[in-house]
Amino acid sequence: QHRKARFNMTPNIEASNATNKGEFYEDLKMQIEGVVDGQRNWVTNLANSSALIYHGLRAVTGKPINWVGFYLLDQNAPPAAAGAAAKDALILGPFQGKVACTNILFGRGVCGTAAEEKRTLLVKDVHEFPGHIACDAASQSEIVVPLVLNGVVIGVLDLDCEDTEGFDEVDQAGLEAVANILVKATTPA
Amino acid sequence: QHRKARFNMTPNIEASNATNKGEFYEDLKMQIEGVVDGQRNWVTNLANSSALIYHGLRAVTGKPINWVGFYLLDQNAPPAAAGAAAKDALILGPFQGKVACTNILFGRGVCGTAAEEKRTLLVKDVHEFPGHIACDAASQSEIVVPLVLNGVVIGVLDLDCEDTEGFDEVDQAGLEAVANILVKATTPA
Repeated sequence: QHRKARFNMTPNIEASNATNKGEFYEDLKMQIEGVVDGQRNWVTNLANSSALIYHGLRAVTGKPINWVGFYLLDQNAPPAAAGAAAKDALILGPFQGKVACTNILFGRGVCGTAAEEKRTLLVKDVHEFPGHIACDAASQSEIVVPLVLNGVVIGVLDLDCEDTEGFDEVDQAGLEAVANILVKATTPA
Repeated sequence: QHRKARFNMTPNIEASNATNKGEFYEDLKMQIEGVVDGQRNWVTNLANSSALIYHGLRAVTGKPINWVGFYLLDQNAPPAAAGAAAKDALILGPFQGKVACTNILFGRGVCGTAAEEKRTLLVKDVHEFPGHIACDAASQSEIVVPLVLNGVVIGVLDLDCEDTEGFDEVDQAGLEAVANILVKATTPA
């Protein structure tokens, strides 16, 4: 069905003046609520959310966070039920950062493992993660938060940093809250 | 139908060593061909294309290009045929840069006008463009290239620069070639 389109051109968000990560994530949650307010387009919401997280987190932490974005459940991948060897797969969605890997099987690398295990993976040194996928050799640490709708992983939120230990439990709690807002507010296409 | 998923994880692209824009756009065309090679996912291709254009063009020109991305034909907007006042609309797609406007009617601003008129708009000073939409007050110049499939505008490629005269006819020719590659290679979801 056709939904009524909104023509408020800019999302209803306020700039963050946070001076630490705790404040930042409180502001970010409100900003993400503003992004999804009345806006059901999945790609639009994930594109703007990537931008808010990337620019905001770099500014407040000063860390060389080099990639923030989403991998989505690939609706065109062969379904897991089709054969013993078939697996669900992720496909690249909206992001901020350099050109990225496009297709990741569930269970492969940090993103695929977080998707398969339906839990956040906070990896302080990617070189110590078995089967790490190096899209960008500059990345040293990573956090991946699954987006789970009705028990099904519909995507993951992925952040990379050029420093080891780029992310901690404050990021995990904040990004899990963001993932919940996006899942609740948004209908996948 | 299900298409066979590729699990080559990184797109088949080579880095550009271009030292001027003419060389850059020659390399970019090959890179975009690499991005879309065997990859039909519209969002994935536009996300990686935004990254290649944004990072590559900033590097080769040294200009403060602050936004590169796509607005897409909004499949959920009320269709133009539904009423005299109804218009087709664009909705925010993948991009690189800061948080952006989400919904733009055909005919509004530089993006909406390029979509309505099905032609590239090269705007050397946005303040001289009637009805300019200021998503980001820092933007001073803009180029918008429509993506046209079988005579229908399915989206636009939009670039902003914080300098006036940020783009020229070399950009126009290069970006129109990129738009053609994307349209030919990609099926909208």
